[in-house]
Amino acid sequence: MYLADETWPDLKAYFEAESLALVPLGSTEQHGPHLPEATDHVIAESLAREAAARTGYLCTPTVNVGISRHHRQFPGTMWVSPDTFRAYVRELTENLTYHGIDRVVYVNAHGGNVDALREVAKDLHAAETCYALEWMWDESVPELVDELFEHNGPHGGPKETAMLQHLTDLVHEDQLAAARDGGVRDIWAAEGTYQNGAATFFDARDNSANGVFGDQTDATAAKGKQLFEAATEQLCELCEWLAARERDELLPAEPV
Amino acid sequence: MYLADETWPDLKAYFEAESLALVPLGSTEQHGPHLPEATDHVIAESLAREAAARTGYLCTPTVNVGISRHHRQFPGTMWVSPDTFRAYVRELTENLTYHGIDRVVYVNAHGGNVDALREVAKDLHAAETCYALEWMWDESVPELVDELFEHNGPHGGPKETAMLQHLTDLVHEDQLAAARDGGVRDIWAAEGTYQNGAATFFDARDNSANGVFGDQTDATAAKGKQLFEAATEQLCELCEWLAARERDELLPAEPV
Amino acid sequence: MYLADETWPDLKAYFEAESLALVPLGSTEQHGPHLPEATDHVIAESLAREAAARTGYLCTPTVNVGISRHHRQFPGTMWVSPDTFRAYVRELTENLTYHGIDRVVYVNAHGGNVDALREVAKDLHAAETCYALEWMWDESVPELVDELFEHNGPHGGPKETAMLQHLTDLVHEDQLAAARDGGVRDIWAAEGTYQNGAATFFDARDNSANGVFGDQTDATAAKGKQLFEAATEQLCELCEWLAARERDELLPAEPV
Amino acid sequence: MYLADETWPDLKAYFEAESLALVPLGSTEQHGPHLPEATDHVIAESLAREAAARTGYLCTPTVNVGISRHHRQFPGTMWVSPDTFRAYVRELTENLTYHGIDRVVYVNAHGGNVDALREVAKDLHAAETCYALEWMWDESVPELVDELFEHNGPHGGPKETAMLQHLTDLVHEDQLAAARDGGVRDIWAAEGTYQNGAATFFDARDNSANGVFGDQTDATAAKGKQLFEAATEQLCELCEWLAARERDELLPAEPV
Amino acid sequence: MYLADETWPDLKAYFEAESLALVPLGSTEQHGPHLPEATDHVIAESLAREAAARTGYLCTPTVNVGISRHHRQFPGTMWVSPDTFRAYVRELTENLTYHGIDRVVYVNAHGGNVDALREVAKDLHAAETCYALEWMWDESVPELVDELFEHNGPHGGPKETAMLQHLTDLVHEDQLAAARDGGVRDIWAAEGTYQNGAATFFDARDNSANGVFGDQTDATAAKGKQLFEAATEQLCELCEWLAARERDELLPAEPV
Amino acid sequence: MYLADETWPDLKAYFEAESLALVPLGSTEQHGPHLPEATDHVIAESLAREAAARTGYLCTPTVNVGISRHHRQFPGTMWVSPDTFRAYVRELTENLTYHGIDRVVYVNAHGGNVDALREVAKDLHAAETCYALEWMWDESVPELVDELFEHNGPHGGPKETAMLQHLTDLVHEDQLAAARDGGVRDIWAAEGTYQNGAATFFDARDNSANGVFGDQTDATAAKGKQLFEAATEQLCELCEWLAARERDELLPAEPV
Repeated sequence: MYLADETWPDLKAYFEAESLALVPLGSTEQHGPHLPEATDHVIAESLAREAAARTGYLCTPTVNVGISRHHRQFPGTMWVSPDTFRAYVRELTENLTYHGIDRVVYVNAHGGNVDALREVAKDLHAAETCYALEWMWDESVPELVDELFEHNGPHGGPKETAMLQHLTDLVHEDQLAAARDGGVRDIWAAEGTYQNGAATFFDARDNSANGVFGDQTDATAAKGKQLFEAATEQLCELCEWLAARERDELLPAEPV
Repeated sequence: MYLADETWPDLKAYFEAESLALVPLGSTEQHGPHLPEATDHVIAESLAREAAARTGYLCTPTVNVGISRHHRQFPGTMWVSPDTFRAYVRELTENLTYHGIDRVVYVNAHGGNVDALREVAKDLHAAETCYALEWMWDESVPELVDELFEHNGPHGGPKETAMLQHLTDLVHEDQLAAARDGGVRDIWAAEGTYQNGAATFFDARDNSANGVFGDQTDATAAKGKQLFEAATEQLCELCEWLAARERDELLPAEPV
Repeated sequence: MYLADETWPDLKAYFEAESLALVPLGSTEQHGPHLPEATDHVIAESLAREAAARTGYLCTPTVNVGISRHHRQFPGTMWVSPDTFRAYVRELTENLTYHGIDRVVYVNAHGGNVDALREVAKDLHAAETCYALEWMWDESVPELVDELFEHNGPHGGPKETAMLQHLTDLVHEDQLAAARDGGVRDIWAAEGTYQNGAATFFDARDNSANGVFGDQTDATAAKGKQLFEAATEQLCELCEWLAARERDELLPAEPV
Repeated sequence: MYLADETWPDLKAYFEAESLALVPLGSTEQHGPHLPEATDHVIAESLAREAAARTGYLCTPTVNVGISRHHRQFPGTMWVSPDTFRAYVRELTENLTYHGIDRVVYVNAHGGNVDALREVAKDLHAAETCYALEWMWDESVPELVDELFEHNGPHGGPKETAMLQHLTDLVHEDQLAAARDGGVRDIWAAEGTYQNGAATFFDARDNSANGVFGDQTDATAAKGKQLFEAATEQLCELCEWLAARERDELLPAEPV
Repeated sequence: MYLADETWPDLKAYFEAESLALVPLGSTEQHGPHLPEATDHVIAESLAREAAARTGYLCTPTVNVGISRHHRQFPGTMWVSPDTFRAYVRELTENLTYHGIDRVVYVNAHGGNVDALREVAKDLHAAETCYALEWMWDESVPELVDELFEHNGPHGGPKETAMLQHLTDLVHEDQLAAARDGGVRDIWAAEGTYQNGAATFFDARDNSANGVFGDQTDATAAKGKQLFEAATEQLCELCEWLAARERDELLPAEPV
Repeated sequence: MYLADETWPDLKAYFEAESLALVPLGSTEQHGPHLPEATDHVIAESLAREAAARTGYLCTPTVNVGISRHHRQFPGTMWVSPDTFRAYVRELTENLTYHGIDRVVYVNAHGGNVDALREVAKDLHAAETCYALEWMWDESVPELVDELFEHNGPHGGPKETAMLQHLTDLVHEDQLAAARDGGVRDIWAAEGTYQNGAATFFDARDNSANGVFGDQTDATAAKGKQLFEAATEQLCELCEWLAARERDELLPAEPV
């Protein structure tokens, strides 16, 4: 059920029956010469709406702009500060509880949002406002990602490319080789990223001339479909698991 | 040009040539028994993208959740505080200037956002960060609105209904009479809204049992099309006017 | 009853009997070559204290500096940010409730404060802290204003001039014609204030060379007296209306 | 020169010639059964305006509500938090510098404001915004205070009583003995205020049943006049001293 | 008992029996050519741990960096803003109450922290979170300080020097005369510190060329031992006094 | 060189020659029945001071209380919010740059601080304030950790136990088996920690009855010495690497 498409009487019926919501969050930021800046929010929204459609749980509109300052050197990247992103998500989530929501899945497709979403989720949990889970799509299907791609990215790499090939017609197919050759195929093997255990880069531009990583030529729409199906299945299972928890299980533990 | 669909090299070309952006902002909130909660963000996004397509100027993704606490008594309404909304919009706008943007049109379709957007625009102007204009679609075509509808609303009334009839298939046509009869046809004539010059209501629920105002049965898709065309034309003109200003005209005046 | 003139035992008696307070708020900002910068806070304080004297309700001291950055280009204008103004007023109001106040009238005489006061009042209402009304004096007597003056201003125009003529000896009578001729007689007819429905000015200086609007030569102390009497009467009625409400009427509505 | 009474052209002339302003700050809080809650802001405003009149320097309107939570148990006390008070004063001061002010005297008559004003002044100094001095009236004439009164208070005691007798007709003369007998004559000799070097009270109510200290029967209008003259003289001297400083003397020192 | 050295089961036993904690707070800032920058935090920690050892009450780790911007012109001085210091101490204290603490002694050895600690303590008291006392070591033994030293400082003077001689081997004995001669022996007699009752200095550098005050050659380890013993005794007494209070005595008074 | 032990003239000499500082950060929180709550700040401080001693770079005092709310259910855990921790560290770091520091190593021994330190470091880098690196000791020697221990923890496990055995006499050797048996030997194999890719725990208490993980009986002081030596060596190398960078290399990249 997509909240934005419904009227309030229909939503009233939902809240009387259920207390779970999916909140998609992405970013609007450079994804190399071949992918649209929408990449992350398209993935998050597509997964969240598909899982909502399959399970009947509620999906809210998408937060389109997130924590992306580290991509600013590439034109078009939009961002807000971590403080403001946290406040925006925290309030939006707190306010869902007015209607009876007490469990939330943050359907996330942008690595830069992860820490912030976990911080917000911890605050909401400690305050007993609600139980919110940060779920990053590709962390739910790591084996499949490894199986499909030799150099999967992360940012702007073949797993995101394949997803966009499957979900949209916005991929510049003629730029896939350029994306690979102008970027960094294997970030983990690259020089200058870690020094004695400390990460020594701050911005995507520090590592990659075109902003992306991995071998994009390895991506196909068919692989994207596989990924999308597998991740959607994970997400549906997570929603069912979460909906099945007793309210008590979702509260903080007592002091020892 | 829609920012989210483009790659960074394409956007680089845009920023080298132009310095204007349209930012659509709406809300996700109850709009009566007949309209989807998306109503405001659908209108804002549709107008902004259409004007961007016609003029070639850049349109960013939409801010979907705004200042709507006063609709919270109706299920599904989402909101953030004015402080957080202002911060989110301010930062998102400030950060566009990193790429060269120095003039922005906030394409707004939610009355609750107006004061906040003007406050942000004033701050950005005083700080000489950029020149941002708050533009509320129906304030650009007041005569046409009056001509088309006897009781235009405002909230959830025939002007919004007509727009959604034109733009989507999400209107519950069988609820139009119910919307009218369960709400308040003429808010200005209603009792209890003003007392000795002071507004004595805080929430939509204080005035209307079903959250909406005006005569929704007066709406048609054809009227919606007229409104959409007229407002789009106004917005295109505004963009051209703004793009034609000299940078100096857009800065604060000197002290007398 | 004027809070600042009383001792705590006298105020204790008041709070045991009543729960309403008037809080005057103005600004300290340029009002053209003919009016003192005190104009707005003089009007607010005079009306609030007069209404308090007539009704017996409590009037607090005046907040003298408000939201006036848009007048900064004219010497002497003082201001604080909207954030700080809201915090100052919000806390001052919250803290009155410690003594038993649960209903407040913000007696306001500065347009720049309106949005901020409404935002504060909404927060206080939603939090069930108290019921505060923003009351702008000239909005309570619009017909009389229109009847008395052809070009009423707004800022620094004849309605404010007449009020100050009635209340003080601070009006530079020899500057009335200069005020009119060096400013803008009819702001609504002036060029460059609106473009396709968007307000395109940020500061008073953008529109008026001397900072004021309307025809000041139309003002007299007698008209000021009429305005003062009429507005005081409105304010007294508002206080009585508000004091007569049941506590329950003043709380937010329940969810539908 | 009193800013609020002047027009902007007159103030323009002042700012072209001078760069100093006096800002009066007080409180609105209980002062026992004999003094009005205005006591502190009346004293601050009277001294600041008198010194401005004698020296020709500029005096702004008064900040009437300050840091007084520790008097809240007595009806009518108004207060804001230290954070908000600091922000209000800081911004108001920063914004005076737009007009050319670079030196400010905070004319203070409330002990609870002292730390906050010094903190603000330090911030403004370190940021090279301006040079602001916190001046507490009775600290400028300690010998005279000691000479005139055996038990001077501080809060609501004879020195404040005498000042109000001189400046207003708001003193309840018939309550002076009650004030003394229902309060604490000698706070320094009272039990329960200090323990092993630590102050063990938080609120005025912790020490005094009626909120005041000292021997109020020792106050007379004549003594008040003496105090007022002496303190005004000190303040005038301070203004002249400050105005005579070179701009460079007022900036922070360089690192050693 | 030193919290940091214990395991949680041991601390569980403490919290079941007691509800008092000592929190040492100092600074890291210049103390002249003869003393280490640790001076204040060494003193605070030493006193707090000694008193904890003698009484059995709990001592937490030390807050090492405080409010010291006014010493910044001397190399090595570290500082945070008053806002951040207050937040850090407030939260750390609030969170101790999770474990059952309801009374706290801030064992402070830095004058620059005093106002901030008192503000935090007032907030905690008013909110009924806990009862926290600011205790500044040398204010507990003023007579002894006066007896031991003719010119005691304050900053970097003989009382602090003696304490460090007793507690550490970090004092540069060969710099004591230089400290005295390059600084200010008698700050109260110095010119330029007060003007008509207003303090006219902001930074230590404004008064003292080498950052310190008093006659350091008057310090000995034996005097330091005397001071340390006397202050420890005061602190132990204070803890016993505080622990003996009924919970009710420690709450804010009711309104009159 | 340890900042706190030095006088300002000695530090002046350092800042004239070098521009690097090490800042140790830990936590004060439960570490099971066998380890002191100081564990993390002892490790951080020991490594930072040792590396400073060997390389001659400057080490500041330690931040002892960090982000540990997730350990609150175990007595004695102290914490501040992420917002306040970030502000405290950010300001302390910014202010070091007043003395000429432009590169900083955060020597961190608490996982809960990692995200916050990286966020602060990113802000400082983007603002061109300085180049700060978050360095977590055990991430610099992952192979050695794996080689020494089969089940290394993380929290309160054998690697931390061994370090404390080497550095202090605070380890309760008789509790090592209890620590292992009352906790969770292999967190990665434990049930209930992840669900479909989402972490489903918020507090240490959610996973472990005694708050710790791994096999503590595997720890020895000799292994601790090996770890300490290896990590110190990594840290020294990192300092030398960082000190050798050109200032330009440490600034953000230009836009593409």
